[in-house]
Amino acid sequence: MPKVSSKGEQMPASPIRKLTPFAEKAKKKGIKVYHLNIGQPDIETPKAMLDAVKNANINVWEYTASEGTESYRTKLAAYYSKLNYNIRPEDIIVTLGGSEAILIALRSCFDIDDEILIPEPFYANYNAFACQTDVVVCPIASSIETGFALPSVKEFEKYINQRTRAIMICNPNNPTGYLYSREEMEDLKHLALKHDLFIIADEAYRDFCYDGKTFVSPMHLDGIDDNVIIVDTVSKRYSACGARLGALITKNKDVISTGLKFAQARLSAGMLEQLAGEAALDTPDEYFEKVNKEYTERRNILVDSLNKMDGVYCPMPGGAFYVVASLPVDDAENFCKWILDEFSFENQTVMIAPAAGFYATEGKGLNQVRLAYVINQDSIKKAMICLEKALQEYPGRLVQ
Amino acid sequence: MPKVSSKGEQMPASPIRKLTPFAEKAKKKGIKVYHLNIGQPDIETPKAMLDAVKNANINVWEYTASEGTESYRTKLAAYYSKLNYNIRPEDIIVTLGGSEAILIALRSCFDIDDEILIPEPFYANYNAFACQTDVVVCPIASSIETGFALPSVKEFEKYINQRTRAIMICNPNNPTGYLYSREEMEDLKHLALKHDLFIIADEAYRDFCYDGKTFVSPMHLDGIDDNVIIVDTVSKRYSACGARLGALITKNKDVISTGLKFAQARLSAGMLEQLAGEAALDTPDEYFEKVNKEYTERRNILVDSLNKMDGVYCPMPGGAFYVVASLPVDDAENFCKWILDEFSFENQTVMIAPAAGFYATEGKGLNQVRLAYVINQDSIKKAMICLEKALQEYPGRLVQ
Ligand SMILES: Cc1ncc(COP(=O)(O)O)c(C=O)c1O
Ligand SMILES: Cc1ncc(COP(=O)(O)O)c(C=O)c1O
Repeated sequence: MPKVSSKGEQMPASPIRKLTPFAEKAKKKGIKVYHLNIGQPDIETPKAMLDAVKNANINVWEYTASEGTESYRTKLAAYYSKLNYNIRPEDIIVTLGGSEAILIALRSCFDIDDEILIPEPFYANYNAFACQTDVVVCPIASSIETGFALPSVKEFEKYINQRTRAIMICNPNNPTGYLYSREEMEDLKHLALKHDLFIIADEAYRDFCYDGKTFVSPMHLDGIDDNVIIVDTVSKRYSACGARLGALITKNKDVISTGLKFAQARLSAGMLEQLAGEAALDTPDEYFEKVNKEYTERRNILVDSLNKMDGVYCPMPGGAFYVVASLPVDDAENFCKWILDEFSFENQTVMIAPAAGFYATEGKGLNQVRLAYVINQDSIKKAMICLEKALQEYPGRLVQ
Repeated sequence: MPKVSSKGEQMPASPIRKLTPFAEKAKKKGIKVYHLNIGQPDIETPKAMLDAVKNANINVWEYTASEGTESYRTKLAAYYSKLNYNIRPEDIIVTLGGSEAILIALRSCFDIDDEILIPEPFYANYNAFACQTDVVVCPIASSIETGFALPSVKEFEKYINQRTRAIMICNPNNPTGYLYSREEMEDLKHLALKHDLFIIADEAYRDFCYDGKTFVSPMHLDGIDDNVIIVDTVSKRYSACGARLGALITKNKDVISTGLKFAQARLSAGMLEQLAGEAALDTPDEYFEKVNKEYTERRNILVDSLNKMDGVYCPMPGGAFYVVASLPVDDAENFCKWILDEFSFENQTVMIAPAAGFYATEGKGLNQVRLAYVINQDSIKKAMICLEKALQEYPGRLVQ
């Protein structure tokens, strides 16, 4: 029997998936499980976006141009202009989700064993994308004490060497929710220019910034056009994760022409999704205001509840819909398993993600968890009651 | 300015794309161009498939399970049973097109510099997929004289070494249209078992077999369950190329569990497409009978016309919707360019693909072209008149 690749064996499995069997077991026992573990929002997709698919009048469901339809890219460019990105349609490659944009960016910029710097904790699948493109991830520690602010320029520079090709950030951040400030973005620019690095900015959560804070993209900074690659997606913006529609955006012509070769190999992104994406661009501001108000309220409930629990600490993040909290437990993975497997309160329990999976450094984040506020406020409140009780009862609780 | 990867530089560009500017120029001059160059059928997508999307009643366009929805995989397994594949839902990973299934198969089975044997000419993007997964392609020559039959076992064995991991075939074939016989499939089985190789069978054109010939899949052969990986797609079967819906199918549990890690990293295939794919499985046999009748007629017109032209030879293929023909020209790429750029007949011309791009071996197929019969019969006839005239006028015509 022929063997699978060693690359396949090295591929990290999802940190959450290990817990799934325990959640299923709990449900079978009739226990209600509050899912704070994944980034699948409950928010409704804008109706205009769904209608665009319903009303598409086609006879043949055809390939589109590999870079995306002219029409969608033109409208996207106009949309980015409103965000003060100076983007033309030819600076955009439409992708099958933000996921594919990340893969294309890595393949276009990295040779085997080239290195990428990423503040950690970070979106766990970056590890998986790096593994399959033979890119070496150098995690740069950010810490819960500073609310997961950007590590210092000095800290980054410790890890920059001949093989370093890029710094990757996710802003606002998954898993921490941290929103990078203008000063932090300027630091990144300084690093990129000084060391001739790409900045790959994953802006999947761009639309979710709270408390009146402004979002700063590397696209807003002068003089680094050739260094910047943006990863974008409709998944979270319009709560349209199942559309698999994203984009890679860069003013670096070599990256576009290289990325296009990878896009051409897989022929096309989804045809109907590009129509939907086009319609989505007309979503009125009120939609986002309403959604952001809802997320802000949920965040406040979540963070306040967490910080009221004995021994728990959770910084208040500025964006996205995640928080990372530290718990007074021996091992967060054990705890996350235990609350599904052995605990319930009034026939309810909660599923949260151990944060260790978001760290590349072995042994980090062992007492931390990520919570996604993608369920309604009432459910969040109930989930927090469960969590508080669970922490009181957990046999592996640390005495402080 | 940071540089793109050398992998990106090595990525082969599409063999057809070079001609696109010339086709656009011709159109601007008011010349009608018959497109026999690409695999985008003009056949209508089954209405039930499009209706499934229109009638989907969703509020949130969600991710699905990374391996595909339970419901779609269950129906797919039943569909494969009707083809006498012994497949369970857990043997299937739903992918973003056949393209992604190929990528996942390569990543799951190959380490850096492992080798894959592929009869050439072959689908040009196999080169692109191999390049981005660092797989080395060993082309095994098939020839126009035998109608592009499978190369002999001996020929394959010349190239098998320690690093050889798999044989890849496309059946029926793109670009040649060749349909492999049961004997040929048995030869492949023998090779796979003897040398412990995977057989990766790309069955994108499975539904297009003509003249009452039967299709044989490696899934029909006994005793090689662990060696076989099938690449499937709805693109051609239902003329739904823009749906980006495919599947990787294997009874090898390690390949499934490894492939799943790659699928999990990119989260999900399209949600609405899986509903559409499900509906498509109910497409009545009459649809395929009608389509196959149409393709058979087109093929006959095309091949007959070609063989009537002075110095042209085109074997009659048993499947798919492509043929490869040899032309009496110095260089088919020049010729393909010339008919767009400098030729027209009654204000019409034709776009066809130079076959050299389907060969990995430098210098092969230089006088061959691929033609796709994806336009209606009347247009094919007109295109053939253009081609005949063009061959008569072409300055680089070989005197025979
Ligand atoms: C930070 C981040 N980047 C990228 C993605 C990928 O999203 P998609 O492929 O659905 O666009 C996600 C999804 O959760 C994410 O959290
Ligand atoms: C032989 C072959 N395999 C795979 C594909 C990829 O098809 P898709 O990604 O649309 O499923 C094609 C498309 O033309 C093809 O011809």
